[in-house]
Amino acid sequence: MGKIKLKKFLHGGDYNPDQWPEDVWEKDIEYMKYYNVNAVSMPIFSWAQLQPNEDEFTFEWLDKIIDKLYSDGIHVILATPTASQPAWLSKKYPDVLPVDIHGRKRKHGARQNYCPNSPNFKNAARRIVEEMAKRYKDHPAVIMWHISNEYGPYCYCENCAKAFRQWLKERYKTLDELNKRWNTAFWGHTFYDWDEIEVPSYLNEEYEYMPGRQKSSFQGLSLDYKRFMSDSLLNLYKMEVEIIKKYMPDIPVTTNLMGPFKPLDYHKWAKHMDIVSWDNYPSIKDTPSSIAFKHDLMRGLKRDQSWILMEQTPSQTNWQWYNSAKRPGMIRLLSFHAIAHGADSVLYFQWRQSVASCEKFHSAMVPHVGHLETRVSKELKKIGDELLRLDEILESTTKSEVALLFDWENWWALEESMGFRNDISYLEHIDAYYRALYKLKTNVDVVDPKEDLTRYKLVVAPLLYLLDEESAKNIENYVKNGGIFITTYLSGLVDENDRVILGGYPGWFRELCGIWVEEIDALFPDMKNAIILEKPIGELDGKYDCDFICDVIHLEGARALAYYEQDYYSGMPAVVENDYGNGKVIYIGTRPEQRFIECLVKYYAEKAGVQPILPVPEGVEITKREKNGNEYVFLLNFNGYDVIIELKDEYYELITQKVLGGKATLASKEVMILRRLKG
Amino acid sequence: MGKIKLKKFLHGGDYNPDQWPEDVWEKDIEYMKYYNVNAVSMPIFSWAQLQPNEDEFTFEWLDKIIDKLYSDGIHVILATPTASQPAWLSKKYPDVLPVDIHGRKRKHGARQNYCPNSPNFKNAARRIVEEMAKRYKDHPAVIMWHISNEYGPYCYCENCAKAFRQWLKERYKTLDELNKRWNTAFWGHTFYDWDEIEVPSYLNEEYEYMPGRQKSSFQGLSLDYKRFMSDSLLNLYKMEVEIIKKYMPDIPVTTNLMGPFKPLDYHKWAKHMDIVSWDNYPSIKDTPSSIAFKHDLMRGLKRDQSWILMEQTPSQTNWQWYNSAKRPGMIRLLSFHAIAHGADSVLYFQWRQSVASCEKFHSAMVPHVGHLETRVSKELKKIGDELLRLDEILESTTKSEVALLFDWENWWALEESMGFRNDISYLEHIDAYYRALYKLKTNVDVVDPKEDLTRYKLVVAPLLYLLDEESAKNIENYVKNGGIFITTYLSGLVDENDRVILGGYPGWFRELCGIWVEEIDALFPDMKNAIILEKPIGELDGKYDCDFICDVIHLEGARALAYYEQDYYSGMPAVVENDYGNGKVIYIGTRPEQRFIECLVKYYAEKAGVQPILPVPEGVEITKREKNGNEYVFLLNFNGYDVIIELKDEYYELITQKVLGGKATLASKEVMILRRLKG
Amino acid sequence: MGKIKLKKFLHGGDYNPDQWPEDVWEKDIEYMKYYNVNAVSMPIFSWAQLQPNEDEFTFEWLDKIIDKLYSDGIHVILATPTASQPAWLSKKYPDVLPVDIHGRKRKHGARQNYCPNSPNFKNAARRIVEEMAKRYKDHPAVIMWHISNEYGPYCYCENCAKAFRQWLKERYKTLDELNKRWNTAFWGHTFYDWDEIEVPSYLNEEYEYMPGRQKSSFQGLSLDYKRFMSDSLLNLYKMEVEIIKKYMPDIPVTTNLMGPFKPLDYHKWAKHMDIVSWDNYPSIKDTPSSIAFKHDLMRGLKRDQSWILMEQTPSQTNWQWYNSAKRPGMIRLLSFHAIAHGADSVLYFQWRQSVASCEKFHSAMVPHVGHLETRVSKELKKIGDELLRLDEILESTTKSEVALLFDWENWWALEESMGFRNDISYLEHIDAYYRALYKLKTNVDVVDPKEDLTRYKLVVAPLLYLLDEESAKNIENYVKNGGIFITTYLSGLVDENDRVILGGYPGWFRELCGIWVEEIDALFPDMKNAIILEKPIGELDGKYDCDFICDVIHLEGARALAYYEQDYYSGMPAVVENDYGNGKVIYIGTRPEQRFIECLVKYYAEKAGVQPILPVPEGVEITKREKNGNEYVFLLNFNGYDVIIELKDEYYELITQKVLGGKATLASKEVMILRRLKG
Ligand SMILES: [Zn+2]
Ligand SMILES: [Zn+2]
Ligand SMILES: [Zn+2]
Repeated sequence: MGKIKLKKFLHGGDYNPDQWPEDVWEKDIEYMKYYNVNAVSMPIFSWAQLQPNEDEFTFEWLDKIIDKLYSDGIHVILATPTASQPAWLSKKYPDVLPVDIHGRKRKHGARQNYCPNSPNFKNAARRIVEEMAKRYKDHPAVIMWHISNEYGPYCYCENCAKAFRQWLKERYKTLDELNKRWNTAFWGHTFYDWDEIEVPSYLNEEYEYMPGRQKSSFQGLSLDYKRFMSDSLLNLYKMEVEIIKKYMPDIPVTTNLMGPFKPLDYHKWAKHMDIVSWDNYPSIKDTPSSIAFKHDLMRGLKRDQSWILMEQTPSQTNWQWYNSAKRPGMIRLLSFHAIAHGADSVLYFQWRQSVASCEKFHSAMVPHVGHLETRVSKELKKIGDELLRLDEILESTTKSEVALLFDWENWWALEESMGFRNDISYLEHIDAYYRALYKLKTNVDVVDPKEDLTRYKLVVAPLLYLLDEESAKNIENYVKNGGIFITTYLSGLVDENDRVILGGYPGWFRELCGIWVEEIDALFPDMKNAIILEKPIGELDGKYDCDFICDVIHLEGARALAYYEQDYYSGMPAVVENDYGNGKVIYIGTRPEQRFIECLVKYYAEKAGVQPILPVPEGVEITKREKNGNEYVFLLNFNGYDVIIELKDEYYELITQKVLGGKATLASKEVMILRRLKG
Repeated sequence: MGKIKLKKFLHGGDYNPDQWPEDVWEKDIEYMKYYNVNAVSMPIFSWAQLQPNEDEFTFEWLDKIIDKLYSDGIHVILATPTASQPAWLSKKYPDVLPVDIHGRKRKHGARQNYCPNSPNFKNAARRIVEEMAKRYKDHPAVIMWHISNEYGPYCYCENCAKAFRQWLKERYKTLDELNKRWNTAFWGHTFYDWDEIEVPSYLNEEYEYMPGRQKSSFQGLSLDYKRFMSDSLLNLYKMEVEIIKKYMPDIPVTTNLMGPFKPLDYHKWAKHMDIVSWDNYPSIKDTPSSIAFKHDLMRGLKRDQSWILMEQTPSQTNWQWYNSAKRPGMIRLLSFHAIAHGADSVLYFQWRQSVASCEKFHSAMVPHVGHLETRVSKELKKIGDELLRLDEILESTTKSEVALLFDWENWWALEESMGFRNDISYLEHIDAYYRALYKLKTNVDVVDPKEDLTRYKLVVAPLLYLLDEESAKNIENYVKNGGIFITTYLSGLVDENDRVILGGYPGWFRELCGIWVEEIDALFPDMKNAIILEKPIGELDGKYDCDFICDVIHLEGARALAYYEQDYYSGMPAVVENDYGNGKVIYIGTRPEQRFIECLVKYYAEKAGVQPILPVPEGVEITKREKNGNEYVFLLNFNGYDVIIELKDEYYELITQKVLGGKATLASKEVMILRRLKG
Repeated sequence: MGKIKLKKFLHGGDYNPDQWPEDVWEKDIEYMKYYNVNAVSMPIFSWAQLQPNEDEFTFEWLDKIIDKLYSDGIHVILATPTASQPAWLSKKYPDVLPVDIHGRKRKHGARQNYCPNSPNFKNAARRIVEEMAKRYKDHPAVIMWHISNEYGPYCYCENCAKAFRQWLKERYKTLDELNKRWNTAFWGHTFYDWDEIEVPSYLNEEYEYMPGRQKSSFQGLSLDYKRFMSDSLLNLYKMEVEIIKKYMPDIPVTTNLMGPFKPLDYHKWAKHMDIVSWDNYPSIKDTPSSIAFKHDLMRGLKRDQSWILMEQTPSQTNWQWYNSAKRPGMIRLLSFHAIAHGADSVLYFQWRQSVASCEKFHSAMVPHVGHLETRVSKELKKIGDELLRLDEILESTTKSEVALLFDWENWWALEESMGFRNDISYLEHIDAYYRALYKLKTNVDVVDPKEDLTRYKLVVAPLLYLLDEESAKNIENYVKNGGIFITTYLSGLVDENDRVILGGYPGWFRELCGIWVEEIDALFPDMKNAIILEKPIGELDGKYDCDFICDVIHLEGARALAYYEQDYYSGMPAVVENDYGNGKVIYIGTRPEQRFIECLVKYYAEKAGVQPILPVPEGVEITKREKNGNEYVFLLNFNGYDVIIELKDEYYELITQKVLGGKATLASKEVMILRRLKG
């Protein structure tokens, strides 16, 4: 596994010199040096510029600019340009173009517009990647490989159908097994020949239940198609990695992920990445905790490593409904926010703002005006200067005592399955629980339920609807060994094929939770209930609103913590606690108001011995990275006002390069990076 | 015409033993006996299980379970499994798969996913049905045939186009006639060859005017295509019936209908059914009257017969947006509600809750937990016990003095036509008038305008926009003979081809109503008007809001009952009464507030001599069935509180098996079935 | 260029005698004479009636009715029937049918359902048009040609793709030039062969960003496809004109336009029309100014000519969501409204109300009742009588001192481009500024930015996002010569290929406005800011709300008129004034509340010497036409109450044929047409 040889915080961004005349290049390099840029990603979309036809390559311009950059001390994150095939390829080999979920054969254009199972696409991609790898394998500028770009859409073509059947054969071996796992006896779906299996699309099993909400009539098939499509795209990635590793085994390889991007199971992807990288595009309406969640989710893909912030925008995006400018101080605060959560870089999309096409109003390091005397450019310059002082925290890692479980397969199943409420958004419920952990003022891991959990004191898993036996056992094992586990309604219900765990809800978790959920009532949006506490729990006392889902719970060993106030299950348990092995499980059978969630999580965190990194005021985020026995504490003030931080010990602040202790002012939108002084 | 030989209230539901290992079957039968189940519907979706390929049938498992059931006293409603063809059939004969309204050829999957005019589908369906009929024709377990399942979607393929042209030739004989009836001179649509006629779809005449609201530019064609598609699916049904009748002429045949299901003209379908059956799936938000309407609509398909409640869910569905649990007592109340409206059964979808696929969270008689010690199962058990006491009302019928006219062709035309307001929902307006009839506390028939109406004292027909001359004459005849007829704006306007009845609105009804409607003004949703009464009518006096449509009415013999308050037709008649023959017509030219409708209907009902079955408090529904000179009065308390019923006579209550008289308490969600004691 | 030889206000409408039996024709002519109808448009949709097959024409019925009409003094606006090809044509030549933006091949039906680049459609259209032109070239009834009908939808078929590539070759000559202009290096779009260029559709570059809001990933291509499609349809029009001119060079030719109809660049179309005509269909919710805008936009297509109101409805339409009846007096007021804005006709769709199909509830001159004793018909009769008194204003023209710039290419680019806010509606912002001009009580021209502007005192151009160098220079020249120019945020930004004008916003207008816009902040819909005036401007003083977009402005010679109140650009200029040459530019960097816009425009109008035609109360519209040295002042009272008009001079009122002076009452919904008496 490669490591980045450049031992500095990466600073720079996506660079598209081929979109500009060469006379602009000089200016580019002058400006890069001004900003302390040390790395640029390229040539991400330049396949057509590098290969004008099947038999010709035109790498000369790329050679030239890479040499030029390197001679000025700027390194290159070398990208394979396979996200957008040249028009001549689509034209010559129609199988390259995908078929969408409506069954429509696409035409050339846009980007990420290819079939991942197209033989001709694969051949052509292999060829351009191999040409690049061979050409630049010894170039000292290259510090990392950036495979393709933001892998994405699914395909539903006949080549994919064929590959899917093959994938199914490998997974299930026999049709009998597949018929059983998918419950094909339902609605007469029994298959007698592999070729009878069609891909699930709007032409058969899939439909748009509400606008933007896709449902399936046949979850077994639909769930496996998502797995297969994620794998198909992963195979493209792996195909490129393999070629590159042949020539440059020591250079780390990554691809830029997109946070909670539903189509791809990044937990599987990360296993094939040397280092995780991702593109962070919050809007000005996003809360700090929702951004922190994404960082922790991406960091959790490889939880004992630092990672790369591959893209963010200096100010505005172009593709959101409302693309507000980032307010003063925010791009700097967000850059340090990423670092606080484990990033080793501050990279932007993109270097120079496009002159035309859909991204022209996406901001860039060099704006349309063509000079750097702008509010935004001055902020970028400041960040570039400050990064120089952070070398000591490079590759430091993040240790957490608490974890949130997040699973892509669960996400797919929960939202595509039918029943109870058909408007469930996994991310919305995840957000509620992440926010509670975030408020503990400690590091939070967001991890796959399959990860070893024994390192944690508290594990939270809302709506963990689908899980396989291995994951279920993993959680049981964690609790048995003394862990505290908090879970909710709609958890433990189905196996990896969306088959119900028979014998009483919550299925896998029935014994673990010490309850039997007789009914899972769904409330209409205009309906509410309330839960009443048996006795105070930490800061909680009395009555709290609840809605959405109300489990009708029978105790089978658990103790009720709160009861329903109304409806026919009035007086029945709504929240319970169960002892299991050396640990404890808390099951929340409804959606309580946010304050309840936060106080309950806090109560159990304290019980588990989880302490804030430092006591800090509301609105100040705190995280910690560690390296070589040093702790680096990050304090970020997201408030619109200054706050006082009480420091019991003495610390060295890396940005101001000052020693702090006692009362210290953290200005609005300011950050402190504190190394505790050994005393 | 066959009659059900089992002279008991049918109790049971859809049974899918082939979705379970055989060792579950024993448990199934044990539980069925516990519940007093006496009938199960099967094998509804088992075509692929019964015919693994074109040349092989595997009925052995079905033989076995039918024998097993019968030996335990459980009868079978034998279903043809043609709602879901096997995958091998779709694969071998591509014409089996339909084309949707977007022109997309569908792929195999989901259900009801076949072309009704596919020769290969028909051949294969005929074959499996014939095999079944032959095999089970002498089996004593079989008490009824259940053809296919919930017939539904339309097809737009070339085979359908061919069949449509043939259907048109039979209907119109000549192209000249068709051109005239469809007014093809409009927008240059004149046809010179039958083959020029294309099916109406989103590729030509149809478009989605608002989300979910389909409009046509060419009503003549679009209306006939709906008739043709309803007929095409009906032909499939009739094809199966014909085969079955060859082998089992005495067993009644049905198919499970779906209440006000727009695509199919059930008035035509019912003529080919021995007994009507339907699937009732109210949500917890549905009002008792909206459910009663559906029962009365389905009962009205064969108004002098009892009918079969073929499916309902013990508690939750899976496919509604919000699938709340049925509140305690509700499944029992709803079961008796169906019986009160003429049902001879309490049947559920389904017996055992699915382990996987889209219906897995649809509730069932045997829930996932696998035992019957649940709130819901206990209610089902109670119903099963109580049904045993109701044998005497089996096959009793419902006589009504009032009727609501409902017509599928009118529904299609009213909503697909264009003009005035393009957001008209027929069901919404029907609901307002049904509610008024429902509050009369008497039986209500919902019938086809073509039915003999002379048996009624009061007939109500809101928005009867389209009708043919025969129906118009039928209504005239009813009024001439002394009937009272209430109709509204947007009635009488067009003939069966959506051609305007020229010479002044309301077209067919101009003379009948004694008015001329000069203009039909459409109000925007934010606009209101009011109507002011000429003098009190029953409980009505003064001013009432109105909106939606305001007819500008001139009297031509009628008397004004109310006038508009505002706008340029202020002071002009809004509601009128006309004497016609020995009867009376009331025309309501606008949408008044609900109270006005209810009081007006009540006033004319009283005038017509319609009396409540018994005087009962608000929220208590009352109906009556009759048999052998006995009257069975049903009282259902939909209130959340108990009420006192005043009984002048003495009655025998069938469920409690007690004699009642004077003041009797009807608890919340309770039901009484009273037989008047001859005294 | 032909002129209409009939020197009368045209009165009449679309006539479809072929949809009726001949015995109705006599009644038609009787009624036409009653109404003083002097012109009817026909046979608009009669292709199938005129040509039953490829080799046969059946003009006899048309000959007959034209002769009949003419013998009764009724002229004919002769229409080519090419908007709806016969079914046999679509069937015989499949290339005639278009492909929609989803890639779906359409089927025959509806109307305007052909491919504009179909060779077979063109051949057939040429043939029917030539037959008609030859046949009627000497007929004295014919006073104008009406080409096809409401040209409209785009096609995306392979024939269009081929023609598009040819169009591109002619426009760009080389692929190098095209690659540069379109910035194809972006997202790897470089083309090496013309055939690689695909039409932009939902299969590649286009997508529905929000419901009803189409966006492109590749503006260069998408913008040119709109130009090409507008040209393709224009070519069809020109093809027909060319044939007609061969036979009837002196008869004016037009086609009925549709106001601000987005798909077609009417500025290009008008160059090929002898006279502009358009179809005006306001709903009762439309404001007088929004209707006036459309008239002025259509008039502005040929600004020194009068025009033809080709269609309006006597009362209701059928195709709007809510089709209210026109209130009493409104059809008359709207008819004079059109005349006030330059129309020389009052024509309706349609003569006799359809008996069937989608337009049957669209009102007509002869309603379904079949006689004219209706409120609406009486109004029409009155208009018909009054028109006889207006001959002296025929062909009078409209001179304006103020102009609003409106550009179709800008509309396309502004809404299909991405960035800042993706919900921009050009018409919404245009409306705000047109309303301000409308309130000046003077004539307003709405014109192409390419028109000579030097005749104006004040030119307003909101959101003039895209313009080519020629237009930019045209505006500069206007200001240099002393004009006052008001523009806004999102103006001057890109060239004709949607390429950003580099070097600082607002691009083309940076020097003109004397500012540099550093940032263009986009506000979420729930965000607001305010602007505070430096000192009073006319009636303005203090603080005004603003929202939507806030430009962050640096002065480069301009003077700030108002500053932002809040956010990080608080205190920075929001509205500025700049001297340029002999003129002045006002740049409004945000969307202020409507009152601010109106007062600011009024202030600069007064400064420019623009005076109201006459001082009139709120709600009274005033315009002026001129001819032979006479001025005709139109006063229209849109209020619900009467008003007093103060006339300093004496005038002759044409409708009442009275002399007026001093105080005169203008009743609600009344109109005056005043000729100033030379004193
Ligand atoms: Zn594919
Ligand atoms: Zn079909
Ligand atoms: Zn085309």
